[in-house]
Amino acid sequence: MTIIDVINRKKAFKELSREELEFTINGYLEGSIKDYQMSALLMAILLNGMTDKEIIDLTDIMVKSGDVLDLSKIDGIIADKHSTGGVGDKVTLVLAPLLASLGIKIAKMSGRGLGHTGGTIDKLESIKGFNTKLSEEEFINQVNKINIALVSQTANLVPADKKIYALRDVTGTVDSIPLIASSVMSKKIASGADIILIDVKVGNGALMKNLDDAKKLAEKMVKIGNAYRKPTICLITNMEEPLGYAIGNSLEVLEAIDTLNGKGPSDLLEVVITLASIIIGAVKKIPNGDAQKLLFKQLNNKEAYKKFEELVKAQSGDINSIKVSDKVFSIRSDKKGYVNKINALKLGEIAKQIGAGRSTLEDKIDYEVGIVLNKKVGDYVEKEEELAKVYLSDKDISISEILSCFIIEDELKEKPKLILDIIK
Amino acid sequence: MTIIDVINRKKAFKELSREELEFTINGYLEGSIKDYQMSALLMAILLNGMTDKEIIDLTDIMVKSGDVLDLSKIDGIIADKHSTGGVGDKVTLVLAPLLASLGIKIAKMSGRGLGHTGGTIDKLESIKGFNTKLSEEEFINQVNKINIALVSQTANLVPADKKIYALRDVTGTVDSIPLIASSVMSKKIASGADIILIDVKVGNGALMKNLDDAKKLAEKMVKIGNAYRKPTICLITNMEEPLGYAIGNSLEVLEAIDTLNGKGPSDLLEVVITLASIIIGAVKKIPNGDAQKLLFKQLNNKEAYKKFEELVKAQSGDINSIKVSDKVFSIRSDKKGYVNKINALKLGEIAKQIGAGRSTLEDKIDYEVGIVLNKKVGDYVEKEEELAKVYLSDKDISISEILSCFIIEDELKEKPKLILDIIK
Repeated sequence: MTIIDVINRKKAFKELSREELEFTINGYLEGSIKDYQMSALLMAILLNGMTDKEIIDLTDIMVKSGDVLDLSKIDGIIADKHSTGGVGDKVTLVLAPLLASLGIKIAKMSGRGLGHTGGTIDKLESIKGFNTKLSEEEFINQVNKINIALVSQTANLVPADKKIYALRDVTGTVDSIPLIASSVMSKKIASGADIILIDVKVGNGALMKNLDDAKKLAEKMVKIGNAYRKPTICLITNMEEPLGYAIGNSLEVLEAIDTLNGKGPSDLLEVVITLASIIIGAVKKIPNGDAQKLLFKQLNNKEAYKKFEELVKAQSGDINSIKVSDKVFSIRSDKKGYVNKINALKLGEIAKQIGAGRSTLEDKIDYEVGIVLNKKVGDYVEKEEELAKVYLSDKDISISEILSCFIIEDELKEKPKLILDIIK
Repeated sequence: MTIIDVINRKKAFKELSREELEFTINGYLEGSIKDYQMSALLMAILLNGMTDKEIIDLTDIMVKSGDVLDLSKIDGIIADKHSTGGVGDKVTLVLAPLLASLGIKIAKMSGRGLGHTGGTIDKLESIKGFNTKLSEEEFINQVNKINIALVSQTANLVPADKKIYALRDVTGTVDSIPLIASSVMSKKIASGADIILIDVKVGNGALMKNLDDAKKLAEKMVKIGNAYRKPTICLITNMEEPLGYAIGNSLEVLEAIDTLNGKGPSDLLEVVITLASIIIGAVKKIPNGDAQKLLFKQLNNKEAYKKFEELVKAQSGDINSIKVSDKVFSIRSDKKGYVNKINALKLGEIAKQIGAGRSTLEDKIDYEVGIVLNKKVGDYVEKEEELAKVYLSDKDISISEILSCFIIEDELKEKPKLILDIIK
């Protein structure tokens, strides 16, 4: 077998066998298969697709390319959560303590990503002292003690995905449903949880541009989860505007804290409650309506917030330390009308530009900067009324660029649904 | 513009502009675009195709990546010839002196290829003393003096193709009609001839597996030629059996000499006369039948052979020096019947194995080895009758492997046509 044989079979729409995929992935990790050969195969996969069997085999081979976390020492049902990446996405910061407050174990180990703002780990690090680097033993002990730990990746999880993803990033082979599904799921499987929650973002700024593709991706990920007998629940959510009001690391943590105290924005709440009620309903064997009631109770009686406080304390953070920049600019509307659209992607890029996100893994994040919306899609705005506040540090920003993210019209358009589908 | 933009456009079936192709090819030559990015784009081109405009632009950019031979100091009509690679293909050795004997100028500069046997240049070097390394001035002077020169490539012709072809070879991106057409034609255009003759082989062992693909390739090459106002004539020929009887370097030169003396095998003659009569008919403005008569006259009156002798002498070769190995084995049939098929590809691979061809550009060719068929498709063979002679040197051979190349059956099957189409 040679890599050329494998490439030729994929070119001819043939199904690659487990042996061929193993030969390819292991050869690539060892270096006997070169970057330029792997990228040709990745492009053939992107254009010609993969069968379900191929996707499941590929995922499994990637899982086995590195360590697999053994969470058997944790009692109870362990949940993990992933988002394909949205602007203002602080769902994990709310969902995780909320579920933990009801006895679900949250053992989440994340890598550090590139994005418009930092990932969950970076956001937590905007809390002074918060230690994301627990040993595997500390990690497991903490979950057993307080039901929750959120840490940065220490184990050598899925090195094959790491190497392949870096190549995909520079060869135009990111947007392949089989490759995204196996990349996301290999990391979730290797992380050892029992239940996997995934938020698949769809829209102009998201990886999935349309609902059909998002559904296909979700279906593939659910199939992979099933192959490991791990219930996998995918929410397909609209990324037509940022989630909640805050974009930025400290700013998002503060909004998450408000939400955990029962004062969250409705769109963020809708995503959190929808995901959480599916799990709580199933685990506690109660109807979804009852599960939702229970969840709202946990928010209103501050049990969810207390769990968050407990988490921060356990990982040495000072919850009173969270700071945002005091260099704040108000962006005011140049006309009156209804906000019919907010360009989430562009706002995300602006947030990154002013320091809230990384362009390379070496970049340092400025936790204190960001954007807070004052208006969301469907709101009416007067001329000169505030649309958003911008929290700046050392980098400048163009007001007209921010203004151009808001589409303001005389007629109110129907607001698109936030949750487009649930696939499980 | 980034290479990712270019790759994304090709993924989405968009036509690449001249600027995008220039950015890509020049960036790849300079090193700012990496092998792994180029191979991803090549795979996208292989799977999604290219428009005629893209193919012509790509060819032109490749031509301009290096030197372009200036043959303006040669008087008269200059022809060049290329074959996509066949087993036993000695057409150029016959066609070139035949056309030269009738006043057509043959100025052919070839690279050294990998193949079952050597290329034309290697075959000529089996003649002791034959010097294929003329300077550009010597080359042009010789064509002006005796109408013909066959030399190895000295100028820096189409470096972009050299680099891209090496990458295609190791990434499964060889079999793309747009990429083959632009690769072949860029070298022919840079070589400076007025008329381009191309023999497109089709069949199991050839680059083009079926007639449809071969026709498409021929049509693209003719379109490229037209864009440069250079008449381009493509013959589509069947590679279901070796051309003529001889496979190997010295052996093929000897068969070519026989053919130049009017004693050639009918299939080789058919290809040579078909190609030559199109040119002679057009140049001398006579009907094709008259052109064919004229060509047979040149073979029978030994004018064509004399031109070959003149060529060998001009390039310092000793025509009486041609040697074949005296270690000859007779391969005899193990049954009687009709030879309905001869596996050209496999015979070619055996010839290479015993030293007639190269696996890497560093390998040395053994000029004296090869295979000479005694039977061709359509012939009847008795049990124990000779099918072929094998000329060996230091490498051994399996008799049953050679026998397996001959399909011998009780019933005579209809022999497939040799020339399947002419596209010009």
